Parts: sequence; C-alpha cells; structure tokens
Amino acid sequence: MLTLYYSTGSCALASHIALEESGGEYRAQRIVLKNHDQRTPGYLAITPKGRVPALVTDQGTLSETPEILAYVAQRFPAATLAPLDDAFAFAQVQSINSYLCSTVHVAHAHGGRGSRWADDPAALEAMKKKVTANMADCFALIERDMVKGPWVMGDAYTISDAYLFTLGGWLEADGVDIAKFPKVAAQRARMLDRPAVQRVLAEEQAA
Amino acid sequence: MLTLYYSTGSCALASHIALEESGGEYRAQRIVLKNHDQRTPGYLAITPKGRVPALVTDQGTLSETPEILAYVAQRFPAATLAPLDDAFAFAQVQSINSYLCSTVHVAHAHGGRGSRWADDPAALEAMKKKVTANMADCFALIERDMVKGPWVMGDAYTISDAYLFTLGGWLEADGVDIAKFPKVAAQRARMLDRPAVQRVLAEEQAA
Repeated sequence: MLTLYYSTGSCALASHIALEESGGEYRAQRIVLKNHDQRTPGYLAITPKGRVPALVTDQGTLSETPEILAYVAQRFPAATLAPLDDAFAFAQVQSINSYLCSTVHVAHAHGGRGSRWADDPAALEAMKKKVTANMADCFALIERDMVKGPWVMGDAYTISDAYLFTLGGWLEADGVDIAKFPKVAAQRARMLDRPAVQRVLAEEQAA
Repeated sequence: MLTLYYSTGSCALASHIALEESGGEYRAQRIVLKNHDQRTPGYLAITPKGRVPALVTDQGTLSETPEILAYVAQRFPAATLAPLDDAFAFAQVQSINSYLCSTVHVAHAHGGRGSRWADDPAALEAMKKKVTANMADCFALIERDMVKGPWVMGDAYTISDAYLFTLGGWLEADGVDIAKFPKVAAQRARMLDRPAVQRVLAEEQAA
C-alpha cells in the first residue's frame, strides 16, 4: 500500500493526480503546513526534509516529485503514464519534470519562501519583485520548447501533464496571465476535464 | 554518437564522468561561459536554455543533469551505473539526484548567480551571506540520510556518486569544510582514485 502525504495548494498535487490516474491502491494523507505538521517528530521520521510530498512505499519513502512521478509510472505500467520502453522519450519526460522542479518551482518559491536563501527583509522583497518575470520567462520556454500539444508529450498523456498542471496553477497568484501561453492554457483546460483530476481537486479542497 | 557540451567547473562534470564510466562512445565539447559561448545562436539552437550540460543524442538533446545521468545509465546498462531492474532503488538514485539538482545546486547558485532571482545588489549580497549555512545544512542531510557508504547507494557505484562528487567539489569555495561529513569526504576520496574520474578531470582542466 502506498501513502502520499500532501498539503493543499502544494506541488504534491502532481503526485496525487498521478496516483489517482494510475489505478493503483493508495491512501492520501493531508498535512497542514501552517500548523507546522511537517515539523513534528512523526513527520520528520517519515521524511527528514520536512516537506511535501512524501510517498511511503513498502520499500521506503520517496520525497522528490520527479521521482515519485516516475515511480508511480513504473509501478503501474498498465496506466501508461510515461514512455517506459523508450529511454530517450522517458528521459525527455523526466527532463521536463526536472526543469519544473529545479527551475520553475524554485522561481515561484522566491515569492513566498525567500527566507530559504536570504535573511534580510529587503532581500525578500527584492526576490518577490522578480517572480512574475521569472515565471513568465519559464512558461515562455515551456510553451515554445516543451509542450508538443495537446498534451506535454504530444498525443500521449504522461506524468509531465500532472506536474505542469500543478505549477501552472500558481501562475495567477504570481501575476502571470496563462492566456499568453496558448498550448499551456489548452493543456490546463483538458486537465480540468479529466475525472481523476476532478476527484483529486475535490478531495484536496474539501474542508 | 553522443556529444556532451560542458564548461569547466560546472555541474556538467557529473555527466562527463558518467559518460566516461559508461564505456560508450561520446565526444566532450567544452564551451566557455565567460566568453558567453552559451548565448551564441549556434548553442541556443542546441539547447534554448543556454546552459550546460547539454547531451546531444541521435534522438534529440537532453539538458538537465538528472536525466542525462539516467539516460547514460539506461543506454549503457552493461556499465551498471544504476539499479535499472528495481523501480524503487532507481527512484532512490533519482531522488538523490533531484535533491542535488533542485536544492543543493540552487543553494550554491545563490552565491554567484543571485541575479537570476533578484536585481537589487544588496539582495545579491544577502543571498551570498547564506550560502555557507545552506550548503552545510544540505550536506548534513546528505551525510545523515542519503550516503549509505562507501558509495552513495552502498556497495554499488552509481550515477549519484558522480553527481555528489561534482557538487561536493564546490564546498570549499562555499566556505564549508567537507571533513565535517565523513561519509561524503570518504566517498570523494574514493572518487579521486577512479581512473575514469582522473581522466575527466585532466581533460576538463587542460588548457
């Protein structure tokens, strides 16, 4: 049995969607960051990073989104959530996910989590000022060079779609108009039509 | 034929080592960042991100370190650079690589590349001030929770060893004493004994 620890509004949404699409058995356990659930000894025993997502498996815990996504795709191959038989195509999927993780998520995090990288309040304000431009630059690259359409990888729906949808959901709060990126916007609309996505959103947003 | 584009002192070292360890045929092409080689139209046609590494394959280009490493491991399975037959163990390798990419490399980058995230010179100075503490925190977590020893994954040498070695090479300049992390320091010493690592370092450091 797999257990996903997530918090509402976080990047864990990508893993939650992938699990729901996989057809596999799993349990989703919400933690509340503003209550500091992630700093409790119990949670730190699950993942010493003290962050979400964390996926507890019978072999151990994974706590980085790209690897949780890849693991779900590989554990439930019948769901065809990644091109598992083609090392290059799979690397492309992973490369997009890595960009979303190490560049796009990081760009966004400078808005609300700048204290990870500086202590001076003025520096945090300076970081916030650049978030809109950085997120717009990231999504311009994604639109031009990554999303084949209608899904990220073309005709095949993959784990990259769940991840792009998750980070794309932050654009509005970051001051970026998704309509400037037609392929990204169309992919987002298609995601919202998927029953699995609707179920996950309803669960995450339930009181 | 594979072509790796790298710059000396960059994270591309990890991919370079993995290729050298793979036994596969490849060509390594140096570009010089201070000459802005990465901003030429020719290089931007290879990778629109304008960064290193980039691995050009007969199917296209990969430009994120974790995926280049995974691709090399999968393309040359005889070199056993990753636990390819165990989805969870492979995900662990990838999870460590993702942490190195999205957290450790990002922490380091706030020293010299802060202008990615803020424009105010005082903010860049504030970011620089936190690099030593952040890198020390990252390596404390790596020492405690990631490196099994003697290699990252235990007895088996993997692509994670090449990546950890690469980012560990930045500690001294970041003001962190590697000796505080005995398993990391021992892994680094073992890496320096490997002929493939020695060949790559000699090539990258040649005038």
